[in-house]
Amino acid sequence: MYELTIDLNSKSPLYEQIYEFIKEEIKSRRIECKTKLPSTRALAEHLQVSRSTVDMAYTQLISEGYIESVPYKGYYVSEVSLLYNFRGTDEKIDIKDEEEDKKDVIDFSPWGIDLENFPFNTWRKISKNLLSSNNKELFVAGNSRGEFELRKTLASYLYEARGVHCSPDRIILGAGNEYLLMLLNQLMDIKPVIAMENPTYLQAYSVFKKNGNQIIPITMDKNGMMVKELRKSNANIAYVMPSHQFPMGTVMPIKRRIELLEWTNEADDRYIIEDDYDSEFRYKGKPIPALQGVDGSDRVIYMGTFSKSIAPSIRMSYMILPDKLLDDFNRNMSFYSQTVSKMDQLIINEFIKGGYFERHLNKMRSVYKSKHDLLISLFKENKDIIKISGENSGLHILINVNNSMSEEKLITRAKNEGICVHGLSEYYIEKPHFYKGTIILGFANLSEDEIIKGVKKLKKAWLIK
Amino acid sequence: MYELTIDLNSKSPLYEQIYEFIKEEIKSRRIECKTKLPSTRALAEHLQVSRSTVDMAYTQLISEGYIESVPYKGYYVSEVSLLYNFRGTDEKIDIKDEEEDKKDVIDFSPWGIDLENFPFNTWRKISKNLLSSNNKELFVAGNSRGEFELRKTLASYLYEARGVHCSPDRIILGAGNEYLLMLLNQLMDIKPVIAMENPTYLQAYSVFKKNGNQIIPITMDKNGMMVKELRKSNANIAYVMPSHQFPMGTVMPIKRRIELLEWTNEADDRYIIEDDYDSEFRYKGKPIPALQGVDGSDRVIYMGTFSKSIAPSIRMSYMILPDKLLDDFNRNMSFYSQTVSKMDQLIINEFIKGGYFERHLNKMRSVYKSKHDLLISLFKENKDIIKISGENSGLHILINVNNSMSEEKLITRAKNEGICVHGLSEYYIEKPHFYKGTIILGFANLSEDEIIKGVKKLKKAWLIK
Repeated sequence: MYELTIDLNSKSPLYEQIYEFIKEEIKSRRIECKTKLPSTRALAEHLQVSRSTVDMAYTQLISEGYIESVPYKGYYVSEVSLLYNFRGTDEKIDIKDEEEDKKDVIDFSPWGIDLENFPFNTWRKISKNLLSSNNKELFVAGNSRGEFELRKTLASYLYEARGVHCSPDRIILGAGNEYLLMLLNQLMDIKPVIAMENPTYLQAYSVFKKNGNQIIPITMDKNGMMVKELRKSNANIAYVMPSHQFPMGTVMPIKRRIELLEWTNEADDRYIIEDDYDSEFRYKGKPIPALQGVDGSDRVIYMGTFSKSIAPSIRMSYMILPDKLLDDFNRNMSFYSQTVSKMDQLIINEFIKGGYFERHLNKMRSVYKSKHDLLISLFKENKDIIKISGENSGLHILINVNNSMSEEKLITRAKNEGICVHGLSEYYIEKPHFYKGTIILGFANLSEDEIIKGVKKLKKAWLIK
Repeated sequence: MYELTIDLNSKSPLYEQIYEFIKEEIKSRRIECKTKLPSTRALAEHLQVSRSTVDMAYTQLISEGYIESVPYKGYYVSEVSLLYNFRGTDEKIDIKDEEEDKKDVIDFSPWGIDLENFPFNTWRKISKNLLSSNNKELFVAGNSRGEFELRKTLASYLYEARGVHCSPDRIILGAGNEYLLMLLNQLMDIKPVIAMENPTYLQAYSVFKKNGNQIIPITMDKNGMMVKELRKSNANIAYVMPSHQFPMGTVMPIKRRIELLEWTNEADDRYIIEDDYDSEFRYKGKPIPALQGVDGSDRVIYMGTFSKSIAPSIRMSYMILPDKLLDDFNRNMSFYSQTVSKMDQLIINEFIKGGYFERHLNKMRSVYKSKHDLLISLFKENKDIIKISGENSGLHILINVNNSMSEEKLITRAKNEGICVHGLSEYYIEKPHFYKGTIILGFANLSEDEIIKGVKKLKKAWLIK
């Protein structure tokens, strides 16, 4: 009979202790395969527990397959392959803490945003209201393209703010641009050959690459992607950022936009992906309307996100599909569930409909404008050495430093002063032959003091008076 | 000079009216390319507005590329290709409402869950607390694998509740299983050939298919996927649901699990994907521990979700990678941003850590158990005609109806009574030669009254006394 001691003080129920004990005996081979176990009655007596307790233990062992019940005979240990070495279930798990210590550097990252001015109260109010109604609808699986209410709100917002033309049914929400690009990739019935501006947004580049697409870097001139070069390529998709190219900051003029649209009409199945990632922030005049708005032949796939305009941690992007692709999507891809939680969708919907988003954008535009203006003003005495470009829009500027230091040297010397800056060269798919070192200065997540302090240190590092 | 009337009552600023007017003139070709525009001074006088107003309008037209400024000469309309037909910006957008009217049918769907018992108050409390602190961290871009705190919480929960062995760094969060499967697909450096139980969870099947994988259906016996047949195939990945196979409800006994694990060791780069989608709900004894917990050679990719245990609209799943795949992920895939919003991650973290999740699961287990028991009891007088299988676990059961009606007929006759039921045949990749019509009855989202009413109507439809 088994040496099983039952600890009446133990948290786990009796039947579980019996089950655990016998399971371990079997796993450790202390009980041989095919061994007959005592009847529930016998074991119950032996252990001084109720028979039903033993019953439950045996039932669990049966359902997990450790033992078998043979009618009219009793319970037998199953033939569990002896070859296999089990992992010990009492193995310790070591949890190494991943939190990396934040260093005291000033980071001119182009990726950050200003969160000092995040509308916490509004956000709190909206989510409170949504939850207070015990609204079950909040937690039922939603529309695979996204909540209709939100798509309706988005459609009119994009029409008003970006000149984008679409009905809600053409909008597809997703948890970030990268995910939407993955969907797009599966949506295309032709093998995508993707032309990208060089330099470009590397996140998108990596997604296209990882999804096995051929990518063709296209040179940019002051007006953006060079359509002549695009025509020479075998690309069928052009990925562009016409309102404010990342990282160059180029605004694509209407003429180039139209050349691009004409290119799509010179062959079947050609598309433009317009990534309108930060168009909300323009500091001179009004935002540049989207390319999609002038597309007469339904060739533009428009993409937008709330990462810059609200917060990066809110994983919500949207794409607007041309009719043909939309049909394909509805036919072949609608089995994909929506990836954005309904709660977030409804919060954003209220945020836009309630006019909070517009107010927030106006506020942020002025916050960013003053940071932008400050940063530029700090270099105004250095016009001879420092050439600024990509200004008046977005959350970063570019500077060329003509002090005979290489880009690499500029970065390392800044680093030694406790300043983190990035080089434009990071963003090239193919680095051009005549590359002039260029530094990217993001200003969104820095306070005005940090900007002043940072620039002072940069000048020191770069030996600029 | 231009026929421009300025509406001082209009909401849009003067400069914008001028800009819009000239833009339309150019687009509509009423002003020819290369035409010289009046000087800002001249136009300002003509319109009786300040010169800076006209300046702003011109600047906007320049930045969008409609006009060009030629030094010492003035402003000229750019050469905008005449070939191109613009889309009219005043085009109306028709918004058709997508809300489909909910019909009054009783739906025995296997996909729903019970939301009557959703812990609204807890949820409200947790999200309120998180937001009340004006915690900026909530909105900063987070860890690409998911918040460390949550992964730490998950690791110990999965160890306690599912016998899963992992450290937090091996957990990768994502907005739903489908997304995680897409990532997995990109992660594999070998071409995945995927063996799936037949019948299986078609959502996963569709994702694998869409991602261009070869899929091999493997016959199931009463213990699950037949390893003999798996061995004969050239599959390198086996996708299984050992705790409670969907749709069959099979629990894979330890012996079959070990055979499966042995199969992975018979060649390099073989993996098991264990989808543990609804293991929390077992109504007889305790939950069946995960296969991953007995895997001694690090071949199991474990996947779980909160869709069943909390709510489908919360798009949060997780996968636990074997070390080799984890290294590959960190090396090649970490550029993908996390797809679950940080807010949702932190809510779930509090929900689990605070003990609310366990309480919720216990409550739901008893709620579902009574629905499950009720549903089964309603057929107890019909043992001769109705054979029940896949019971004691999950949110659905299977029934064979031996009344000489085909599956199709059973479904349509139910439909005519206002009852929606699904046939098992929907879930086969390849329908077996000797297929016996089987009906799936999900009970989670139905009230006990609806279950009673529904079964009564089913019996009527199926001519069962």
